Amino acid sequence: MNGAQALIRTLVDAGVDVCFANPGTSEMHFVAALDDVPEMRGVLTLFEGVATGAADGFARMAGRPAATLLHLGPGMGNGLANLHNARRGRTPVVNVVGDHGRSHKRLDAPLESDIDALAGTVSGWVRRSLAPEDLAADAADAVAAAARGQIATLVLPADVSWSEGAAVAEPRPVRPRPQVPPAVVDDTAAVVRAGEATVLLLGDDVVASEAGLVAAARVAAGTGVRLMAETFPARMVRGAGLPAVGKLPYPPEVAIKALAGTRHLVLAGATSPVHFFAYPGTPGTPVPEDCTVHVLSAPGEDGVAALEELAAKVAAGAEPELREASRPELPTGRLTPRGISAVVGALLPERAIVVDEAITSGIGVVEQTAGAPQHDWLALTGGAIGDGLPMAVGAAVACPDRPVVVLQADGSAMYTLQALWTMAREQLDVTVVLYDNASYAILQGELARVGAAGGGERAGQLLDLGGPALDFVALATGMGVPATRAETAEELAEQLRTALHEPGPHLVQAVLRPGE
Amino acid sequence: MNGAQALIRTLVDAGVDVCFANPGTSEMHFVAALDDVPEMRGVLTLFEGVATGAADGFARMAGRPAATLLHLGPGMGNGLANLHNARRGRTPVVNVVGDHGRSHKRLDAPLESDIDALAGTVSGWVRRSLAPEDLAADAADAVAAAARGQIATLVLPADVSWSEGAAVAEPRPVRPRPQVPPAVVDDTAAVVRAGEATVLLLGDDVVASEAGLVAAARVAAGTGVRLMAETFPARMVRGAGLPAVGKLPYPPEVAIKALAGTRHLVLAGATSPVHFFAYPGTPGTPVPEDCTVHVLSAPGEDGVAALEELAAKVAAGAEPELREASRPELPTGRLTPRGISAVVGALLPERAIVVDEAITSGIGVVEQTAGAPQHDWLALTGGAIGDGLPMAVGAAVACPDRPVVVLQADGSAMYTLQALWTMAREQLDVTVVLYDNASYAILQGELARVGAAGGGERAGQLLDLGGPALDFVALATGMGVPATRAETAEELAEQLRTALHEPGPHLVQAVLRPGE
Repeated sequence: MNGAQALIRTLVDAGVDVCFANPGTSEMHFVAALDDVPEMRGVLTLFEGVATGAADGFARMAGRPAATLLHLGPGMGNGLANLHNARRGRTPVVNVVGDHGRSHKRLDAPLESDIDALAGTVSGWVRRSLAPEDLAADAADAVAAAARGQIATLVLPADVSWSEGAAVAEPRPVRPRPQVPPAVVDDTAAVVRAGEATVLLLGDDVVASEAGLVAAARVAAGTGVRLMAETFPARMVRGAGLPAVGKLPYPPEVAIKALAGTRHLVLAGATSPVHFFAYPGTPGTPVPEDCTVHVLSAPGEDGVAALEELAAKVAAGAEPELREASRPELPTGRLTPRGISAVVGALLPERAIVVDEAITSGIGVVEQTAGAPQHDWLALTGGAIGDGLPMAVGAAVACPDRPVVVLQADGSAMYTLQALWTMAREQLDVTVVLYDNASYAILQGELARVGAAGGGERAGQLLDLGGPALDFVALATGMGVPATRAETAEELAEQLRTALHEPGPHLVQAVLRPGE
Repeated sequence: MNGAQALIRTLVDAGVDVCFANPGTSEMHFVAALDDVPEMRGVLTLFEGVATGAADGFARMAGRPAATLLHLGPGMGNGLANLHNARRGRTPVVNVVGDHGRSHKRLDAPLESDIDALAGTVSGWVRRSLAPEDLAADAADAVAAAARGQIATLVLPADVSWSEGAAVAEPRPVRPRPQVPPAVVDDTAAVVRAGEATVLLLGDDVVASEAGLVAAARVAAGTGVRLMAETFPARMVRGAGLPAVGKLPYPPEVAIKALAGTRHLVLAGATSPVHFFAYPGTPGTPVPEDCTVHVLSAPGEDGVAALEELAAKVAAGAEPELREASRPELPTGRLTPRGISAVVGALLPERAIVVDEAITSGIGVVEQTAGAPQHDWLALTGGAIGDGLPMAVGAAVACPDRPVVVLQADGSAMYTLQALWTMAREQLDVTVVLYDNASYAILQGELARVGAAGGGERAGQLLDLGGPALDFVALATGMGVPATRAETAEELAEQLRTALHEPGPHLVQAVLRPGE
């Protein structure tokens, strides 16, 4: 058995049975070994950022890591932005990065670069496999490391992959989630009982499950604390029948207002909030100066159990407030961002997975979908745009029986548009709502927000995507995804219904031209 | 004057007056300052890999660096692959990477990552600017560092950019190219006069100029040594009226044959050749074991002057052999790779800049264009595919009066296809010949070359781009570039003539379907 065969078999045995791949020469034995281990599903992508974003989306929905297969340093570089998002969302990913054969390293061949340094910028675990006999154990360790909510990168020299003498390794034992000590729950109980203005801020570990939301809502019902979710949770369950929890807003001035007057901020799986960027004359965080921050559970700890214990202590018998089913009315006339949101809210199918990279165009979409049937919401965790379409690929591979709806801004779409091709190739049930405002609209707002003087014609040109206009119908069909263009709410509703009804991927270009 | 204004003015004064940009919030003051320093041309790209590849192509043709403007670690990550190519081609590039404001760094905001570590993997020079008063001096140092044939990365905290108190810095003095000591020329003269089987291998510094090629050809004419160029020179002048110099072949078995029997290998601006990858049972380099390697000039030294001195010593009066003007006949019938090459050779315009990312499809194109009118040839220096279309953007910005022809493989095109949009926006005179073989053909060859067993159905699927077929006409027109599709040599010739005749960008999809 060669290294590649043992590696893939070990990955499969440890539960990693999907590999989003963009291989090169040094990965050819890995590719060949896919025919020896048919349990591993190889999914080809045309760009590494699609592979890593798909692995992110897959793990968020499957709850276990996928592998990526990347080609040396430049391949990892291309995948880095979406690995950054995965790191920020604490999503497990196992990267297999092919490298030169061991004897070739010292020759400084053209593709030589410092993969280990590169991997270290996003990975919680990095190892270079040095011998075929060690490779399977390295792979088992990588999966175990990833399972702790981080990125594990295994650098695989080509000759370690192709050499004989490898053997399969056992999966490592799974470490349970660390429990929150009872004393911490007691301390938190005292805080929430005190009756001062308190916000309970919920992180990924809590909002990803109905149990977490219900426990938090019981605490709120029993004590009067306000609930809030992190601004960009990796995965949040929401919709009719679930507790209604709003998210801490993104714009700093709005976030500051949302937390104004708060005396105690209790973190349940969340980190203490900070603004995305620094702004002149604005503090770096929306937390008021006289607010005390308490940690009920740190990210990675069992925050759901802690909240359940807390609810038992402070809210025995309290009933959580649940969102009633409701849908917005279908709007009419020229499209606006709020109109698109209403159409999405009106038509969102049962058990949908919503991937949200709508950026500024997504105005109102959170509210308009709040009473829709229960669904999962995947946000851009790390701010590295270009995660939407790739995450949809991964989510659809993880949950083939669920519809995936992507709310996708135009500027961000262009970073990793190649994801559409993989959607077509794998016939994934993904519907892309493409918000076409022909600009980097968020940057137009940010230009004003940072107080940048000027903002004249030449600055404006760097934020404008209108010359030439992007024809997303042509771009999607060029990669095999059926696409249509909607200029009115009626057209959008009709096209969205069709797209959601038919299997396989679709794209609807929703045209926003506020100036017209 | 704020930091951004001083920075841009300093860059312009040092000769850096083009910036390929993909900005975000932390770069907004840089963007605003473009209206204050109109000599700086900002060119918007939709993806950072386009910006960095364009900077590479620009510098290869202009002989001076362009700037890039990138958004934090993920933005630099997206640009890394083409920075790798620039590094390998010793192309000067000045990266300006925006970062969080200084007070925001410790808050670990979502976009926080280790930019400095990332930059270090590709840059010969990295500095984080720590105060607005220092920024201009930092920028002047960055340009001077880049001018030494490397990548200089300046990390720019947002508040250093927006704060007042900055002043413009003078350009640093230009260091002349190091000269080769006379004793080394004398030693080399003794080697080439000895009459043993000798190859003179020419690197970037030599093949980029007619003077370098002529001096090398005189040495060859006077002594009988064989001339060869590196496999992937950053820039090579060639065509009718110039010395004919072949390139060391890429496939290891062919490269080994090309150097078989060589007793002395003299490097003029080249590094000692190694194979791109390791292969089982194959040595890492094509240089025979009993061959002695001599260095006339190292990369970055004045190899042209050294060759001229050498020629004066060993080949006084010798006339270099020059390539006669010749064009292939226009082929007919179904397209083949060689047929496409013949059409390109027959129609290549005067003073063209050829960007070569044809990979396997470019069979015969070097020979078929050898007698075409004098042109420049830009190759993929670092093996990180996705450099072709971006380099064409940069070359066209550098040389607006020259036609740019891109020989572009389909698989590689999909990494940075967004470059087409910038071509349309800037109305660059670029003609893309898109070799559409619907596969990662090079990997099919490499799968066999590395001796990967298997190569069954599931392995084959990871190398096949045919399901679904990519419609490059739709993809190009979707980004504003007129495009046509050719299935016969006659169609290709007609479409290529039209594309070359009309100003602005065009794409011709040349369909290769060998199995049909």
